[in-house]
Amino acid sequence: MASLAVNQKSGEIIGITATKEENFPLWYQEVVVKAGMVEYYSEIAGLFVLRPLTMFIWSELRKWFQSHLDEMDIGEAAFPLFLSAKSLAKEQDHIEGFAPELAWVTRAGEKNLEVPVAIRPTSEAIMYPYFSKWIRSHRDLPLRLNQWNSVVRWETKQTTPFLRTREFLWQEGHTAHLTEEQAGIEVLEILELYAKLYEDILAVPVVRGRKTENERFAGGYYTMTLEGYIPSNGRGIQGATSHCLGQNFSKMFDISVEDPAGSGRIYAWQNSWAFSTRVIGVMVMIHGDNKGLVLPPRVAQTQVVMIPVGINKKTSTEDKDRLLDQLYDMRKTLRKAGIRVDVDTREGYTPAWKFNDWEMKGVPLRIEFGPKDASKDVVSYAIRHNNDKGTIRISELAPEATKLLDQIQKDMYDNASLAYSQHRKIITKWDEVIPALDSKNVLLIPFCLDGKCEDRIKQLTTKEDDAGDLGTASMGMKSLCIPLEQPGEIEKGQKCLNPECEKLAQKWTLFGRSY
Amino acid sequence: MASLAVNQKSGEIIGITATKEENFPLWYQEVVVKAGMVEYYSEIAGLFVLRPLTMFIWSELRKWFQSHLDEMDIGEAAFPLFLSAKSLAKEQDHIEGFAPELAWVTRAGEKNLEVPVAIRPTSEAIMYPYFSKWIRSHRDLPLRLNQWNSVVRWETKQTTPFLRTREFLWQEGHTAHLTEEQAGIEVLEILELYAKLYEDILAVPVVRGRKTENERFAGGYYTMTLEGYIPSNGRGIQGATSHCLGQNFSKMFDISVEDPAGSGRIYAWQNSWAFSTRVIGVMVMIHGDNKGLVLPPRVAQTQVVMIPVGINKKTSTEDKDRLLDQLYDMRKTLRKAGIRVDVDTREGYTPAWKFNDWEMKGVPLRIEFGPKDASKDVVSYAIRHNNDKGTIRISELAPEATKLLDQIQKDMYDNASLAYSQHRKIITKWDEVIPALDSKNVLLIPFCLDGKCEDRIKQLTTKEDDAGDLGTASMGMKSLCIPLEQPGEIEKGQKCLNPECEKLAQKWTLFGRSY
Repeated sequence: MASLAVNQKSGEIIGITATKEENFPLWYQEVVVKAGMVEYYSEIAGLFVLRPLTMFIWSELRKWFQSHLDEMDIGEAAFPLFLSAKSLAKEQDHIEGFAPELAWVTRAGEKNLEVPVAIRPTSEAIMYPYFSKWIRSHRDLPLRLNQWNSVVRWETKQTTPFLRTREFLWQEGHTAHLTEEQAGIEVLEILELYAKLYEDILAVPVVRGRKTENERFAGGYYTMTLEGYIPSNGRGIQGATSHCLGQNFSKMFDISVEDPAGSGRIYAWQNSWAFSTRVIGVMVMIHGDNKGLVLPPRVAQTQVVMIPVGINKKTSTEDKDRLLDQLYDMRKTLRKAGIRVDVDTREGYTPAWKFNDWEMKGVPLRIEFGPKDASKDVVSYAIRHNNDKGTIRISELAPEATKLLDQIQKDMYDNASLAYSQHRKIITKWDEVIPALDSKNVLLIPFCLDGKCEDRIKQLTTKEDDAGDLGTASMGMKSLCIPLEQPGEIEKGQKCLNPECEKLAQKWTLFGRSY
Repeated sequence: MASLAVNQKSGEIIGITATKEENFPLWYQEVVVKAGMVEYYSEIAGLFVLRPLTMFIWSELRKWFQSHLDEMDIGEAAFPLFLSAKSLAKEQDHIEGFAPELAWVTRAGEKNLEVPVAIRPTSEAIMYPYFSKWIRSHRDLPLRLNQWNSVVRWETKQTTPFLRTREFLWQEGHTAHLTEEQAGIEVLEILELYAKLYEDILAVPVVRGRKTENERFAGGYYTMTLEGYIPSNGRGIQGATSHCLGQNFSKMFDISVEDPAGSGRIYAWQNSWAFSTRVIGVMVMIHGDNKGLVLPPRVAQTQVVMIPVGINKKTSTEDKDRLLDQLYDMRKTLRKAGIRVDVDTREGYTPAWKFNDWEMKGVPLRIEFGPKDASKDVVSYAIRHNNDKGTIRISELAPEATKLLDQIQKDMYDNASLAYSQHRKIITKWDEVIPALDSKNVLLIPFCLDGKCEDRIKQLTTKEDDAGDLGTASMGMKSLCIPLEQPGEIEKGQKCLNPECEKLAQKWTLFGRSY
């Protein structure tokens, strides 16, 4: 049963009413709205307002990632929002992938445009004509640019805050290299940065891998990916992707140089890579609980909230003022130590109401301070994610709070990592597939890597009794990735798991029901 | 005559061919393209690609401004790109101001949208329904949000990089306050931040003032503004604006609270304020010269470029290597001191060619180092903006370079400030207006503040012989602002300058030909 808080003024239920176990989609919607992360945009379906709690997280991720781009000497750019049908059409696989979701501007003011223009769903077709212009000699390589912007994909499927929205914020990096090897090194370097962003900052475990042919980027050569896992429904979720585009786009857009070794022209090897506000949704799904949001300290706008307690009608103004002064002193101490801390001095709310409110908003560490604590020169604390409680001597507040926040960050990651590793099952018998999926696992299976076989596996694992339903229980499984870290060698003569498939298995491949 | 550099490989002229004096618009276009700030977007007119040199500047400005927003506890938000006609229509003056430039999305994929949606030209109509939702009590005030994004205004007039473009980057702050006074304090606080951004970072002098009724923001209450000045053509240019919207929008969008003093409902007092990539264009126009871009050190991605000189065919490999090693050592020293420095070791280009290239790109300080310098333990330097030259002892390189960069920043501001103050003429005789405009001045005139009189002044100062021409010479003058710092009291009985106007002057008002 979810924890319910009632607004003392309006009587309105302000807590989370759905539970993560019983109605995960509704729980998620409630958490992101009630914690103050997003609003549903009432004007137009599929769009969301990102509030300061969300934008603080995004801004922290952006700063961290940008600092690495700076180290790598990757320049920042801003290309236009629009592209014409002409440039989009240059790469046929690419346009086919995006055409159904393009938003078209056909009118400006009262006038129809002579040629309609599309809003970027991604910027390959906008940027690469300039790559062609700027890259004249091998000395111009590598050319590496990144931009932070929003893209529009007019989804026709059900939208979900952060995970599937008609506009989202992201960074998109686009680079060109002289050799496949140089491009390949960067693909993995970026993948590792994305992995660190998930693991070290969002406390979210991910599996690094390569997409199968069926799942790679439209028009690309190969796609590296991070795959996450949502324990509540056992679904896999794509975290971020780093694509090697090969020479496909460079041939279409004529991005080429004289071979410095002197044997004609070489088309550049290109990459593109992106992470989006989706990462925030993954974090919420993994760490949130029935009280609401749970934020890892590194992205919590408020890491510590201090709440005065034990004040009642009998407390003298003097005693109350002294208590508050002490709280402000402690706030100063904590801020000096680099901790983001607030004191909740709102009048007219009980401490219990405030506890619920800050729990819903996911603040990692709560500090309570009342006359009893004061008399012992301590503060009491409660940890959001595991409800651990204890006291800290005031004289040791800053170092102890710092230590606790570090520990919280680590514990949150460790817990999620344990849940993920316990639910990656090695499956070598076809009969075990559906039961394993139904037990909320993702599966490592021996797989032939053939695209048609992959399609067939999806069909075979889709439950027919309620096919067409979008519920997780009936969903077929698809490949998530070929993990870089294989659980072992594929044994000699090992067949593909699909009972209808005669081919040999090539790789352990992660399959699952998925977002 | 402009300085011409010829590409030694292609023979192509790579320098600036137009001069600032003879053809200012062409000069400007050449500088922003050839220095590598922008590309004209070939797909769609009026759009531009912003390259790393530009985005470095924007990113520095953004970081600086964001740090002040953080101090002021102004939250970051991201509202959707789109708005419906319905919400736009709520504020009639506002929609009339923007309707002719709205870009309309009418189609997604192959399907027409049931209701077309417009791309934001600014976000009042997108954000304020949420202000209404979030502001329930006076305790929710002030509500202060800022977002960094791009907006689209489908200009039908001639576009110019940075100054008038169909999409531009900006920040837009939107806030709601309980009282007019509180709103008013913020309007000025933000105006002062914008002024510092211009003066301290971009080395661009501005006049702080208030817009006349004719020139204030559509739907607003009053507009505070910074007005810059382009010496080359004597035109004024709006720098950034901070608007008090009064209660106009709060009445339309129902943003109201119970009066804490108990006398019914109070509509919130709102502000909105923005600065855009336009600031970069102003900076280029003011500081650039016939060799190209001139960057103030604070926004120069490369503050110092080091160029090896005096190496020729007779120089031994050993001597050359020693010279380069010394340059790399100095680069390390300078980087340690926080200076952004590069060494230009490109092969196949003469030092003179490199000098021209870096001058075109606006690098504030060039350091040359050759065998002669090495023998004296010095480096030679040349300052971009005034061509001053000298030497620095290698042992004092970091502190001396730091000092020089500080001095350059200051001198560039002082020069521009002097030019502006010399061209703000106090005019009290109507006959002197046109000659003063023709001498590239902006004018401080005694003015009645009446909107119709202002329109008439524009008519009276537009030269009829070539009316309709867009050239500066024929352009009428309009009000730029009512400067906060008045040149003195308006004398008793002083009439408005317009000879047809019978009213008394109210304020010294800055008029000029303008962008």
